[in-house]
Amino acid sequence: MSFIESFRSFISEQALFTPQQRLLLAVSGGLDSVVLCELCSQCGYDFEIAHCNFQLRGEESKRDEEFVRALANKYNVKVWVEAFDTQAYLIANKLSVQEAARELRYEWFHRLLDTRENRLDVLLTAHHLDDAVETSLMNYFKGTGIAGLRSILPKQNKTIRPLLFTGRKEIREFAAANQLQWVEDSSNASDKYSRNYLRHHLLPVIQQLYPKAEENMRRNIPRFRDIELLYQQAIDSHRKKLLVQKGEEVHIPVLKLQKAIPLTAIVYEIIRPYGFSAAQTTEVIALLNSGSGRYVQSSSHRIIRNRNWLIIASVKAERPSLILIEETGNVSFPAGELTISRNFSSDGKPDTSSSSVAYIDASLIQFPFTLRPWKNGDYFYPLGMRKKKKLARFFIDQKMSSIEKENVWVIESDKRIVWVVGRRLDDRFKMKGAGDIIKISLALRK
Amino acid sequence: MSFIESFRSFISEQALFTPQQRLLLAVSGGLDSVVLCELCSQCGYDFEIAHCNFQLRGEESKRDEEFVRALANKYNVKVWVEAFDTQAYLIANKLSVQEAARELRYEWFHRLLDTRENRLDVLLTAHHLDDAVETSLMNYFKGTGIAGLRSILPKQNKTIRPLLFTGRKEIREFAAANQLQWVEDSSNASDKYSRNYLRHHLLPVIQQLYPKAEENMRRNIPRFRDIELLYQQAIDSHRKKLLVQKGEEVHIPVLKLQKAIPLTAIVYEIIRPYGFSAAQTTEVIALLNSGSGRYVQSSSHRIIRNRNWLIIASVKAERPSLILIEETGNVSFPAGELTISRNFSSDGKPDTSSSSVAYIDASLIQFPFTLRPWKNGDYFYPLGMRKKKKLARFFIDQKMSSIEKENVWVIESDKRIVWVVGRRLDDRFKMKGAGDIIKISLALRK
Repeated sequence: MSFIESFRSFISEQALFTPQQRLLLAVSGGLDSVVLCELCSQCGYDFEIAHCNFQLRGEESKRDEEFVRALANKYNVKVWVEAFDTQAYLIANKLSVQEAARELRYEWFHRLLDTRENRLDVLLTAHHLDDAVETSLMNYFKGTGIAGLRSILPKQNKTIRPLLFTGRKEIREFAAANQLQWVEDSSNASDKYSRNYLRHHLLPVIQQLYPKAEENMRRNIPRFRDIELLYQQAIDSHRKKLLVQKGEEVHIPVLKLQKAIPLTAIVYEIIRPYGFSAAQTTEVIALLNSGSGRYVQSSSHRIIRNRNWLIIASVKAERPSLILIEETGNVSFPAGELTISRNFSSDGKPDTSSSSVAYIDASLIQFPFTLRPWKNGDYFYPLGMRKKKKLARFFIDQKMSSIEKENVWVIESDKRIVWVVGRRLDDRFKMKGAGDIIKISLALRK
Repeated sequence: MSFIESFRSFISEQALFTPQQRLLLAVSGGLDSVVLCELCSQCGYDFEIAHCNFQLRGEESKRDEEFVRALANKYNVKVWVEAFDTQAYLIANKLSVQEAARELRYEWFHRLLDTRENRLDVLLTAHHLDDAVETSLMNYFKGTGIAGLRSILPKQNKTIRPLLFTGRKEIREFAAANQLQWVEDSSNASDKYSRNYLRHHLLPVIQQLYPKAEENMRRNIPRFRDIELLYQQAIDSHRKKLLVQKGEEVHIPVLKLQKAIPLTAIVYEIIRPYGFSAAQTTEVIALLNSGSGRYVQSSSHRIIRNRNWLIIASVKAERPSLILIEETGNVSFPAGELTISRNFSSDGKPDTSSSSVAYIDASLIQFPFTLRPWKNGDYFYPLGMRKKKKLARFFIDQKMSSIEKENVWVIESDKRIVWVVGRRLDDRFKMKGAGDIIKISLALRK
């Protein structure tokens, strides 16, 4: 099968997208994304190009942007370009360069997809099989479940990786055969990032020890994907047998759970969605041999031993829908307590690095303002971003569980969100030099 | 928890053995097995010691044997010692040093366990968690399913590894605290074996890149064991839904199988017990879209497309129970064809390296001799061994599937097995210098 036939057949076998759909290609201008463009063009797909300029590499960043504009011109397709102040964003949010670039990139891509007028159906990125092998290996070293081992998925919601059928070498050969031009990212050559170190130092040693390692590890990836699917099926089947929904509570018969095999993995998967950590699995298993009334608690739920049952119940108190904050002082709410104070900014440079403290330009909000649970449709301007973002999307990007989302509150002033409590400040309300500051500190309920 | 408490609690949690059982400890005299002895002694378990002298390291081998005899003396327990001509065995059977030592060792251990008069219940070996991590990592590089990743099991039939709760460092600390003596195996320091190379060169590089790698990989092992259990549960549940036993055949409804997810893994696990290879999975999946009458074949079975069903049927012909070989020439039997000839050994040195050709001392057998399927209770003297071995045990040691076992035939002369056809010659019938040779070649049926 030729390279392009393999590409097409991977797309249809994995049901990644249909030839009728409109594609947005994430293109850095590097080898992989240039090959992705060429393949989509040769297949006659209907695509547009999106390029992020992270402004981290000076002239090189400009060169890359120009290169991608020319590339779009060559294929006669629309190109979207966005410049980011990555440095400011990563400082404001205490992120690594790679984390910041990732957040900014996907936030923008999804905004393009979500804007209906753009008529874009799915996002295509140029991750390939060797990327997946490297991620899998890194996860193996970091300690992982099966989801870490199968690493990058060909399809995850609207994000699609159609090059996962092939690797670096084959991509390079296709580029050579088609006389493609691309730009080299100088940071790929450095060992600053652990992925590059792994690629340049560790993989060669492995390859020397096991000459077929590369080939073998590539074959691992789809195999691990299948193993994960079967793992999930088995977990679902245990869940179905063990969990009894009673009103707002979930009841689990102790005798039945005691016989479940393998107990640790099953208990972990049952309690995880309720905000419990892997470390709490042992405590929950201990409840199987404890008396009535003992319990284990997460930030949102309690698992209580009650006779022959374990009961999973929410710990949310009677939920007020809105709390009015009328002055400085302490305010109690279900998730904890807020302390509000007013200072002059000249009282030393405040430490803005903690997400549980917000420093707000006092000239921009007035008492009373409100504290309320977030609701669907809420949006804000995350610190460091110039565009607004739906909270629902922000939570997805932050990989928050449904339980975590349930417990998010916001500070609102004049119909505008000021602070997603304990998560992120709104860019519009940040301090802008001298002047008064409203400081709000969050103490979580233990 | 102290080291010995962790040892005890691992044994009870994993239900490895009961304090009443009689244990056989495999003891090389190295650090790990010396610690295993001390732990069993401190716990008051009823144990005996078995030591293999592989005679590969000259004086060092003798020193080790003496050391273990003294150790048994110290604990006042019985010691079993067996000397092996490992070099001869590995040459005769084309094995690596490690493979040969492994076969000889376990064959002997199981013989000791199987001999009822010895009243030994289980075998304990001193494999620990770092051994498991190394095996898991090697399997990852070699390309593996989940069983390879979970690597060494704490309990597998009668073989038990009670040190899998801990690693090299902790074992060394316990030895120091208890002022234990042990012998160092000089081959452990060499990089001749890939495991040592991995330990001495690869793991340090990984540890440098991920300082917590060792700890993380140790936590992977029990996690992978759980994942494998859940994987097997899911596969069993698919099998139950898909397979319909009809007499001697297995029928699978095509429409149902087409919808099974993940198809590749499920098909592979269904066909594997019938002698099909991983590579044939794709061919079997292709049958889902083919016409009636197409089939895929293994050495023992055929999977046939028949209307809306796939049918798995045995390909064994009407099975004669015995074929009399009366002279040189060709003999056809269900698994293939044998060619029998008579030569003088002076006709050049025969190539004894192929398991599909047997060279037999012609002075030891006479025509007619018989060719028949093996049966339970059969035993022989595997080439290179001085002790007899049941065929059933030999098949287990060779890790043969039940389908492979079903298709084994033997050459028998005067009630003694001469050749396990295509597998191994009997030691009693091998050439012993000059003289006539009966040469029997096997050509497998395609």
